Amino acid sequence: MSANTFGQRFQFTSFGESHGPAYGVVIDGMPSEIIYDEKLLLKNLAERKPGQSHTTSRNESDQPEILSGIFENKTLGTPIGIIIKNENQKSDDYEKIKNNPRIGHADDVWQNKFAHADHRGGGRSSGRETLNRVIAGSFAQMLMNQKHTQTKITAFAKQIGPHHLTEEINGSSELSENIKSFLENAKSEGESYGGIIECHIENPPMNLGQPVFHKFKSDLASAMISIGATTGFEFGQGFSNIEMKGSEFHQSLISKNYGGVRGGITTGEDIIFKVAFKPTSSIKDVAKLGRHDPCIVPRAIPVVKAMAWCVLADHYLWHLTDRL
Amino acid sequence: MSANTFGQRFQFTSFGESHGPAYGVVIDGMPSEIIYDEKLLLKNLAERKPGQSHTTSRNESDQPEILSGIFENKTLGTPIGIIIKNENQKSDDYEKIKNNPRIGHADDVWQNKFAHADHRGGGRSSGRETLNRVIAGSFAQMLMNQKHTQTKITAFAKQIGPHHLTEEINGSSELSENIKSFLENAKSEGESYGGIIECHIENPPMNLGQPVFHKFKSDLASAMISIGATTGFEFGQGFSNIEMKGSEFHQSLISKNYGGVRGGITTGEDIIFKVAFKPTSSIKDVAKLGRHDPCIVPRAIPVVKAMAWCVLADHYLWHLTDRL
Amino acid sequence: MSANTFGQRFQFTSFGESHGPAYGVVIDGMPSEIIYDEKLLLKNLAERKPGQSHTTSRNESDQPEILSGIFENKTLGTPIGIIIKNENQKSDDYEKIKNNPRIGHADDVWQNKFAHADHRGGGRSSGRETLNRVIAGSFAQMLMNQKHTQTKITAFAKQIGPHHLTEEINGSSELSENIKSFLENAKSEGESYGGIIECHIENPPMNLGQPVFHKFKSDLASAMISIGATTGFEFGQGFSNIEMKGSEFHQSLISKNYGGVRGGITTGEDIIFKVAFKPTSSIKDVAKLGRHDPCIVPRAIPVVKAMAWCVLADHYLWHLTDRL
Amino acid sequence: MSANTFGQRFQFTSFGESHGPAYGVVIDGMPSEIIYDEKLLLKNLAERKPGQSHTTSRNESDQPEILSGIFENKTLGTPIGIIIKNENQKSDDYEKIKNNPRIGHADDVWQNKFAHADHRGGGRSSGRETLNRVIAGSFAQMLMNQKHTQTKITAFAKQIGPHHLTEEINGSSELSENIKSFLENAKSEGESYGGIIECHIENPPMNLGQPVFHKFKSDLASAMISIGATTGFEFGQGFSNIEMKGSEFHQSLISKNYGGVRGGITTGEDIIFKVAFKPTSSIKDVAKLGRHDPCIVPRAIPVVKAMAWCVLADHYLWHLTDRL
Repeated sequence: MSANTFGQRFQFTSFGESHGPAYGVVIDGMPSEIIYDEKLLLKNLAERKPGQSHTTSRNESDQPEILSGIFENKTLGTPIGIIIKNENQKSDDYEKIKNNPRIGHADDVWQNKFAHADHRGGGRSSGRETLNRVIAGSFAQMLMNQKHTQTKITAFAKQIGPHHLTEEINGSSELSENIKSFLENAKSEGESYGGIIECHIENPPMNLGQPVFHKFKSDLASAMISIGATTGFEFGQGFSNIEMKGSEFHQSLISKNYGGVRGGITTGEDIIFKVAFKPTSSIKDVAKLGRHDPCIVPRAIPVVKAMAWCVLADHYLWHLTDRL
Repeated sequence: MSANTFGQRFQFTSFGESHGPAYGVVIDGMPSEIIYDEKLLLKNLAERKPGQSHTTSRNESDQPEILSGIFENKTLGTPIGIIIKNENQKSDDYEKIKNNPRIGHADDVWQNKFAHADHRGGGRSSGRETLNRVIAGSFAQMLMNQKHTQTKITAFAKQIGPHHLTEEINGSSELSENIKSFLENAKSEGESYGGIIECHIENPPMNLGQPVFHKFKSDLASAMISIGATTGFEFGQGFSNIEMKGSEFHQSLISKNYGGVRGGITTGEDIIFKVAFKPTSSIKDVAKLGRHDPCIVPRAIPVVKAMAWCVLADHYLWHLTDRL
Repeated sequence: MSANTFGQRFQFTSFGESHGPAYGVVIDGMPSEIIYDEKLLLKNLAERKPGQSHTTSRNESDQPEILSGIFENKTLGTPIGIIIKNENQKSDDYEKIKNNPRIGHADDVWQNKFAHADHRGGGRSSGRETLNRVIAGSFAQMLMNQKHTQTKITAFAKQIGPHHLTEEINGSSELSENIKSFLENAKSEGESYGGIIECHIENPPMNLGQPVFHKFKSDLASAMISIGATTGFEFGQGFSNIEMKGSEFHQSLISKNYGGVRGGITTGEDIIFKVAFKPTSSIKDVAKLGRHDPCIVPRAIPVVKAMAWCVLADHYLWHLTDRL
Repeated sequence: MSANTFGQRFQFTSFGESHGPAYGVVIDGMPSEIIYDEKLLLKNLAERKPGQSHTTSRNESDQPEILSGIFENKTLGTPIGIIIKNENQKSDDYEKIKNNPRIGHADDVWQNKFAHADHRGGGRSSGRETLNRVIAGSFAQMLMNQKHTQTKITAFAKQIGPHHLTEEINGSSELSENIKSFLENAKSEGESYGGIIECHIENPPMNLGQPVFHKFKSDLASAMISIGATTGFEFGQGFSNIEMKGSEFHQSLISKNYGGVRGGITTGEDIIFKVAFKPTSSIKDVAKLGRHDPCIVPRAIPVVKAMAWCVLADHYLWHLTDRL
């Protein structure tokens, strides 16, 4: 397995740096005859797109170019190669980073690791890498939409800094006015906040997950914690209710406490999990050198959903050979 | 990658069911000339062993037999095969499970998935599978002990049910009298509890972790959440301090808030993470059919440490080819 | 992928040295509910067994112990762990090898590679490692026998030294008297010979093989050339008929010249391939230190068949997700 | 491992169809600080390019665009994404193929396998996919050129149809006048021929190759037989000298008969292997529908070399963790 490939059956390989010519993703393992849903892909990319709300000033056009694997609007069963060109590479702004690694970023870390690093920005650590995940997730969703139509994935910001939220939002544009102005203030002050995203996989297929190192829950954990700025993952009761007694926790074979996964395998019940994010590192002192994102949470929602689709599609294909 | 293999460079493949003849593990990717430290292996297995404290009444002898890969007390560079025979397979006790899947267990889940399942006990979901992890982790530790001597991994039960703990313990036998009697009561009442384990990787090598899907943190998450009964993983501030502002969180390039990982890569600072466990499923109603473990946390401590050693060794080998 | 694992969907991991305590194999990816055919396993192992003909004087008992993955005579869908103990480890005979690497063997090669090597015999290079392959191949055969009943694999020695053969033989015991006495002479003279095995996969499933690096033919080549002492692989016309014009070679969509594979994918026609073996290295000068095999070809026949079954089962499982 | 990825440490993933927008390759596992040698890449691509000799009339511009992984002329240690746009997609010519699968091609095979196939040409089976291999091989060569400077890989057409050749050629343009006119005649007659390529890896690193399923020889076999139109692989004596007695074959620890590999591991001696190719399928009856290549051998020479570089780089990285 290469470092930049995710998944075992539905696999995607990600490449691209924030200040290089393009990002790209190669999806391998996609069955043939899956209908290519361009609208879905563009909608998902739009949800992720910065600049629409107040959380970032970046303007990215994000036009995907499909290079292979699709013919007459259906998948061929061959690898699907897709790239998105990087425009607006204001690398001049970043010249100063070269000798001044930004606090909270990974500039120095990558320099230490590889000796030679792209000092113009986040490189592979850039949030822009999540473009590839949203693309791959969209194809995973197309597969599931066609083969297990009832499954739906929703996610929302459960907490942004001190604010607890309840409504489902599908991207920055759908935040309440209250939160928008909170984030606008943060931005003008050069402040940043973390938060929590809650995600629901509704009506998932049952029997997904493999013993013992590819449990559904561990692949989900790996997927989520591979997203930049994440600091925690929990499903079902997670960390929130450690005091609960076993006699309360285990009341029947079906229980919300299990989060939809038992023995590492999906039970068919809704899968509920949360992901914690730290405050973005673009705070006052370093923000002038780069671009501002007072909170990554709103833009991370489509990324969390995309990775959940990928885990789902991966295990959906995998479970087809459990028994013949 | 097979479902029962963990790791990319330091890899181990696990097999065995709780009521079959034996458990076993094959470690592949271990360099040659690593000194085989039998004492360490037996000490780690003893830490995991049930029956020494009051958390379980099972008596397992757990004698590892090394079948390959070691010669004249050193590794050969070839795969290391190790088995542990299962004694005391009281499968008669379990005959009833066949038609009555136990609440909280995965009996029905496995039956659904594979149609044909071993109804005599937990099968691959049994806690006894962690034997393989402790064995593999011991070899990972031998590698690191020889090649990066200063690294140490410690772990302790931070919470058991409602009790918050502070001291480091290396296994069930080191619990305080207070907690021991709490668990003894739980056992006699057929009650069970969950908890939290905190683990510290002290003085780890820096530069470990691969972009972007094998970040050190995501492989750690995958390793931990692959352990049975886990429900959450967090490192650094995790879920605990979402209100914290970015200006507090990011104070310098070095900060405890980062949990020892930045950009997915180890910084050389101590790595601190926590793992949440749900209450064991062996509660009153189902316990009479099986064996009692009022809380898995004490016995999971050596398992958490073992998996941390595996992730460490895996990434240690991997980072050697980052640059030549 | 680890160095000692073969296959992508039907995978097996091999361990064991010729002078260690045991050989073993872990099969992962086997579907549940496949009937365990012990008779088939023992028959295949018997075909491979030395000492029955005149090609070797070794006496190996080769009793497989199934440690996991089988319950009530059917596969569980969990990894199948099997070991075979090594008896008769006359390592005293080999003490001299330590400082005198045997010509034709890999003693010095392994010593150079790993610095620390098991000087008592062939280690992982020993022909005895093929036990693991025959075991894995038998399980692959059980899968195919149940799911694609019409497929049959046969193989025979096409050439032994200067002798061209035609009849199918399933192991050393079935050699003609002529060849047996030729090999007996070779043995008494301390001479050795190579040869060619031809293998037919009759009535294989069609559509097996993946673009572009897991073509059926390339995985077959990898499988065959991974067997010790092999020096060549060819299918269809191979090297034998390079002068043939395209207009003769390509006469219709169906042609024996294609060897049953087109575009890397099985067409459903019989797959025919040959494997070349060099003379065994146990010649006069070195043979006294070890054990004599004047020609590896007869004993390699069941190994070639076993690896063919593994490739077949691997691609059979793989092709199930080509389209859903 | 995905179907379109080659290698374990130095890995590349290939995508693209002959009549889609572009081919592309993602190289993962390349260490940082390797100097990007654009001249070498273009030279290797030029060797492969059709239209320069008389073997094909296609005109492909083949300009590689590097999208990631290279910065200031050195590798970053991140995945290297490269695409080559397809121009000249005369798919109108191919409309007829839709209902008339071409003899010798894989049109019907792919249609059977995936139900939905790109009928405009070879799809993933097209010889144009080898562009990706030559690109990946060029980067493997850059790595080896910098880290093991003395290694050189040469290859030449040993046989083209009935003609035995001896001189080394690096591509179609270097064929002798004799062979050029032979091929020109074949083309005008709509005839095609196969052939044999011999390849020498001179002064390779020693100790490359992993037990037991990633022997250097088996990975080489897999690499070569994954190339379209190949029908055989042999190294050392291969199939050519089966009559040779062991006492002749094994004369000393160092022998040309071993082909540079013993026990699956490189000895440091030159590695010599041959690859057999069948006649191209573009014969008279089907050629008018597509493009003509009377013999693939001259153009396959740089492809064989490229794959050999990839296997070499892969095992070079791998062997660095054999012992530390």
